[in-house]
Amino acid sequence: MTARILDGKVLSLTIQSEIATAAEQLKREHNIVPGLAVILVGDDPASQVYVRNKAKACERVGFHSKTFALPSETAQKYIMDLIKELNKDNAIHGILVQLPLPHHIDENAIINAINTDKDVDGFHPINVGRMVIGKEDCFLPCTPFGIQTLMMRNGIETGGRHVVIVGRSNIVGKPTAIILMQKAVGADATVTVCHSRTKNLPEIVRQGDIVIAAIGRANFVTADMVSPGAVVIDVGINRVKDFSTKTGYALVGDVDFENVKEVASAITPVPGGIGPMTIAMLLFNTLKAARKTLK
Amino acid sequence: MTARILDGKVLSLTIQSEIATAAEQLKREHNIVPGLAVILVGDDPASQVYVRNKAKACERVGFHSKTFALPSETAQKYIMDLIKELNKDNAIHGILVQLPLPHHIDENAIINAINTDKDVDGFHPINVGRMVIGKEDCFLPCTPFGIQTLMMRNGIETGGRHVVIVGRSNIVGKPTAIILMQKAVGADATVTVCHSRTKNLPEIVRQGDIVIAAIGRANFVTADMVSPGAVVIDVGINRVKDFSTKTGYALVGDVDFENVKEVASAITPVPGGIGPMTIAMLLFNTLKAARKTLK
Repeated sequence: MTARILDGKVLSLTIQSEIATAAEQLKREHNIVPGLAVILVGDDPASQVYVRNKAKACERVGFHSKTFALPSETAQKYIMDLIKELNKDNAIHGILVQLPLPHHIDENAIINAINTDKDVDGFHPINVGRMVIGKEDCFLPCTPFGIQTLMMRNGIETGGRHVVIVGRSNIVGKPTAIILMQKAVGADATVTVCHSRTKNLPEIVRQGDIVIAAIGRANFVTADMVSPGAVVIDVGINRVKDFSTKTGYALVGDVDFENVKEVASAITPVPGGIGPMTIAMLLFNTLKAARKTLK
Repeated sequence: MTARILDGKVLSLTIQSEIATAAEQLKREHNIVPGLAVILVGDDPASQVYVRNKAKACERVGFHSKTFALPSETAQKYIMDLIKELNKDNAIHGILVQLPLPHHIDENAIINAINTDKDVDGFHPINVGRMVIGKEDCFLPCTPFGIQTLMMRNGIETGGRHVVIVGRSNIVGKPTAIILMQKAVGADATVTVCHSRTKNLPEIVRQGDIVIAAIGRANFVTADMVSPGAVVIDVGINRVKDFSTKTGYALVGDVDFENVKEVASAITPVPGGIGPMTIAMLLFNTLKAARKTLK
């Protein structure tokens, strides 16, 4: 039996339709158009694609968006000043700095400069702290939030089930662990985080009723590591050489999709799984930020 | 074979001696005496004991300390104003509000009011966020920090080993999980967090090379849940009826000590385990806060 494919692309568009409807209402009733500012420094091609997709999505749902594409040699002070300006700009409700930044820039300093009420990526320490404490007024980081939403919308129960997360990054592994262990709807899971230092990793991953792969290594999670009937969420996006394609490379996840789908009960594809969900949650957070200004 | 007893009381005093030496030096070289303010609201007997112990420990290591014992009907505004004053007080480097607070007081509002540079309990969202991100300029919450220090000082390796934490509180379970999964010395563990909703909890706890019990239920972790040779850290402090004692009650941990010590390779007692370590780390954080003012 082949696994059910958890289509993040279609779900993302469904959520975007809901957000577009809510944005219309916000405009009609309060004359507010949610606005997102995206700062991109340098010319990393992957980052350029991500930023373009975010701007396109804003347009689709009726948000206002501004992209600041800066050369890689931009001084830190210039970015800081830009953020200060955006912090004050009433037309901008969300500010996103596309990571990674060039090495001469202090990423933490940049993130700390963002007004916490406009931190729609949820990377500011105060939002991370609120997430841990379980306060509702934080912005959940978009990828973990997308993972949770994809599971909830597909009727995948997490309560009391064992979620094994492979990877402990600040962007995915750690926040996903925190979100899914909370005493809350769409959470309440027993959570294990494993990583490069884990002994007997395959044995631990095999215990997962739900496996979340976010380790950044192509095809790392193989079929023998997945317990029959498990749900597999693939967060990886890895570029591998593939001469059969026009570009000469292909995008693959952290999961050996072809073989794992024969074992799992449900699985996200790459691309078209968690990637589009991340964008939907970014829009969700921007809408939330815009609504915050009503209070 | 009986487990090695991990004596937190003796280790706490050793650390306190080190802190006293460092405090002497700080005074000699910079004329700074670390100062801790402790705010206690209401007359909970356990809280009174904790606060008294903290004040005594400050005295022991040569810190200056001030205890504000307020009646349980104290208005929130009064406490907020007191914190504002202490935030500005140059003789006070650490501010601690003993929890829990009476129900009419908004705990989050109180904690958020503390100057983050004086938040020696590490409960302010910004410090929690920094802890997750792995920044060194945060204050680690005292109990998880005490657990980590006790293990490090006793030569208990965590790297690559499986730590199973029972309980997901904001004070112990969640921060301990985060601290021990970091890519860092004294951490680097595979971490599982289980709790009241966990299915097959005994089976999961049995996988722990290290078991940390912080669920707040007397004798919850029994010998059959502990894998032979595991290290067992007991964070619980539960009051149970015991007519054989003068007071009519006894303090017991979350671990069935008498039976588990026959299975484990090492175990912390209650009292005399993690409790005293928590106090040592509070002093450590206060010293760190005092040193921060040098920069």
